[in-house]
Amino acid sequence: MTLIKVSSQSKTASVAGAIAGIVREQGKAEIQMIGAGSINQAMKAMVLARGYLKEDGLDVICYPEFVDLDFDGRLVTALKLIVEPR
Amino acid sequence: MTLIKVSSQSKTASVAGAIAGIVREQGKAEIQMIGAGSINQAMKAMVLARGYLKEDGLDVICYPEFVDLDFDGRLVTALKLIVEPR
Repeated sequence: MTLIKVSSQSKTASVAGAIAGIVREQGKAEIQMIGAGSINQAMKAMVLARGYLKEDGLDVICYPEFVDLDFDGRLVTALKLIVEPR
Repeated sequence: MTLIKVSSQSKTASVAGAIAGIVREQGKAEIQMIGAGSINQAMKAMVLARGYLKEDGLDVICYPEFVDLDFDGRLVTALKLIVEPR
């Protein structure tokens, strides 16, 4: 499973293209977000990706989960967004 | 349909309780978010609400849409999150 890592600097159109491409190829996508700016970009990208995939007849939904990441001993709670066909 | 308005100052546990309550009563919930801080709080609340509703045997998913709001002539693009049973 390819993990899409989104930052506050990520371009929404690029992230949307990645989501749509991975859902088409693998049937599902996972997005990792750390911080409000990153979640903001990911959710805007999700609106665009839903539009792209709707053109292919795919209706995708999502749901978030907490995930604990370890950066050299520093624990950070990130958000993972799972994107799947409805 | 009750619209849950989330700000960057909203408490995630309160928002989660509102999402779970409205889904239980109305079968579906809609959340309005303006800005990154608000989207951040709403998505964290969504993780909690999924946990609450899972205890009731309900598996809920979500999807975002853009929505244009008019504040006395000032147009703002907000995000609406629709929460539904899978």
